[in-house]
Amino acid sequence: MQENKRFLDPWRYKYADRSHSLVASEIRALFEASNRPEVISLAGGMPHLRSMPFKAISEVLADVIVEKGEMMWQYGSAQGNQRLRELVLDISALEGVTATPDNVVITSGSQQALDYITRIFINPGDVILAEAPNYVGALGVFRSFQAEVANVAIDDLGLVPDKFEKQLKRLDQIGKRVKFLYTVPNFHNPSGVTLADERRPKVLEICKKYEVLIVEDNPYGLLSFDGDIHPSLYSYDYDAELGYAPNVVYLGSFSKIMAPGFRVGWSVVPKGIKEKLVLSSESAILCPSSASQMTLVAYLENFDWKKQIETYRSIYKERHDAMVEAIRKYLPYCDFHDPSGGFYIWLKVPEHINTKHIQAECIEAGVAYVPGRGFFATGEGDDYMRLSFCFPTPAHIAEGVRRLSTVLDKYVE
Amino acid sequence: MQENKRFLDPWRYKYADRSHSLVASEIRALFEASNRPEVISLAGGMPHLRSMPFKAISEVLADVIVEKGEMMWQYGSAQGNQRLRELVLDISALEGVTATPDNVVITSGSQQALDYITRIFINPGDVILAEAPNYVGALGVFRSFQAEVANVAIDDLGLVPDKFEKQLKRLDQIGKRVKFLYTVPNFHNPSGVTLADERRPKVLEICKKYEVLIVEDNPYGLLSFDGDIHPSLYSYDYDAELGYAPNVVYLGSFSKIMAPGFRVGWSVVPKGIKEKLVLSSESAILCPSSASQMTLVAYLENFDWKKQIETYRSIYKERHDAMVEAIRKYLPYCDFHDPSGGFYIWLKVPEHINTKHIQAECIEAGVAYVPGRGFFATGEGDDYMRLSFCFPTPAHIAEGVRRLSTVLDKYVE
Repeated sequence: MQENKRFLDPWRYKYADRSHSLVASEIRALFEASNRPEVISLAGGMPHLRSMPFKAISEVLADVIVEKGEMMWQYGSAQGNQRLRELVLDISALEGVTATPDNVVITSGSQQALDYITRIFINPGDVILAEAPNYVGALGVFRSFQAEVANVAIDDLGLVPDKFEKQLKRLDQIGKRVKFLYTVPNFHNPSGVTLADERRPKVLEICKKYEVLIVEDNPYGLLSFDGDIHPSLYSYDYDAELGYAPNVVYLGSFSKIMAPGFRVGWSVVPKGIKEKLVLSSESAILCPSSASQMTLVAYLENFDWKKQIETYRSIYKERHDAMVEAIRKYLPYCDFHDPSGGFYIWLKVPEHINTKHIQAECIEAGVAYVPGRGFFATGEGDDYMRLSFCFPTPAHIAEGVRRLSTVLDKYVE
Repeated sequence: MQENKRFLDPWRYKYADRSHSLVASEIRALFEASNRPEVISLAGGMPHLRSMPFKAISEVLADVIVEKGEMMWQYGSAQGNQRLRELVLDISALEGVTATPDNVVITSGSQQALDYITRIFINPGDVILAEAPNYVGALGVFRSFQAEVANVAIDDLGLVPDKFEKQLKRLDQIGKRVKFLYTVPNFHNPSGVTLADERRPKVLEICKKYEVLIVEDNPYGLLSFDGDIHPSLYSYDYDAELGYAPNVVYLGSFSKIMAPGFRVGWSVVPKGIKEKLVLSSESAILCPSSASQMTLVAYLENFDWKKQIETYRSIYKERHDAMVEAIRKYLPYCDFHDPSGGFYIWLKVPEHINTKHIQAECIEAGVAYVPGRGFFATGEGDDYMRLSFCFPTPAHIAEGVRRLSTVLDKYVE
């Protein structure tokens, strides 16, 4: 016994309160099992990168390194590279985001912007409103700063304004400090739902009325299957005199429209919040990677990034179609909202089936998914699973869904 | 008045308590002034990158992107690339660090490891012990998590063990929760002091006695002017049975021995802390940049990185010598500890001169430095300034120090 004690963590009584909220996500826990070659993974949200023009980009980059290496490999500004802050506004402009580069902050993926925003706003016990189910990575950050997450109800048209307002009123009445609404309005992860255009100004008005900031996380907005683009919540709040939207923090990302391996995202933010974000960046990492940022500048300046987004769209549409067809064929007893873009289908299995309990059996049968439970702050979701169609080929998707049915069928009969 | 109110930050009453501790560093505040071309900057800690073999690296990288682009631009593990975790141990081995890749965590610069460690350990009011003066970036992180920083006295041989132990006893007696000692043992920023080898085991023993973790931040250790390498604190604490040092978190960085623009650092950590660090990484950024990490793998595998470190050493030695010579010539009334490595000279000016007050005048005279005040948590340091010799040429260094003397001379006479 004495011997084993040596292997206990001697620092376990020294950790901060917030560190007890750090738990491994369901997705990461699956990582190893779903990486076994015989398993078809419908679990991860890895984009399909094969269509990127690697060769052509490598040549452009080689020149950039020779010409600008000293700047590219040096420390940079905590707010991010000026040229990149200009260029990302061209991307966000497609969704109605108007701002100056001064209101843009570059971060290590939009995940880091979420981390900063939470760090800046949340005292332990403060409330964040978020769609339920919700993006696992956001729940992780919110938890790590000891926020209370309050579920916002959604239907097939996204967040439901009436219910949302009732909830804010209730939280107000019981004296809760609500800090912000976190929302993924387009092709929501995991539900696949998109907030209806006509609801957007309503959501904004409610937030303004209750003085609740909106954090609009939009990694998938340009990845609709039909090419339609929904106006951002930001666009409804834009104030020309200020030059930005005073009630919205808009988060954009290269991870899904280009590649995640650079860890570069951007936020478009009101002036006061921008200052706090830049100071957070300086404190947490000094500055984002100049090498990553200048690689993206070279990509945006030298390649037809809009055409690349078209390519991604058609790839993901084909995969989505394959998954929907396979679900209708093999899992007719499961429900789902058919998404019009993004990466995911949120599958409702018959109620008596627990997707966490049958997970090992499904991996044994050669298919991985993410059980629904992890997408809620509050423990529901056991009769849901998230299926991703972004990474596997259409043939693998069909086969994966078929394998899923070999397990589910047994519980349905 | 009504009109101006619109430009106030409407969210100013919503921020978390910790956000009030976010303040711009003296170094960042200087950034613009010291970037004016007519000003010689002895302020920043930017390494001199011109000696890097950019052309050769760009060719290797171009091949890597073509061959491994899909992996290089994809999400990776929150702990960091396995191959890179092996390779950084070859670097740290030079300083007596023994560990397995499982105890290594890759972060966005060692700054981010510092952020995670602070986040994991610090409740508001907890105490961190640190050399005074101290690295500004560490003070910023500590403040941002509402830590109390207690000054540890140093002399020309670094941290003074007797005084350190007395201080720990005192803090213990008044019921303070001391979480860790933060120390830069080699060529300390800003003081230039190196912890004497014979003091290292003493510091470790004291920390063990008081159950205080050591955070050993070592960005400059391989950059001694004479090639001497000091054994890390980690090396004295290594436990072969465990396979790591149970009482030390060791921080390494590519920023000074290769380039800072990738934002890649590594920590070698005890098992329990490693798990918290990986979860912190997942929460804060999902994973470090695969592109940056695989670039560094390509660099370490294909280039003679030890020779590059030699090159850096001789460059910085030449610059150091130029600065010391110029100070002795132009500023004979100033004191300083002559460092045996690193980037900085910590200059003591005559006591009645306030380096913050004469800063604008010096910039007017064409030279920038960092006033001493920012390097203390507690407001001392007004009769000190930090001079960097890493970035400017020897001729510029001499001229910068001469310009400094044109201002200081006036106050000395």
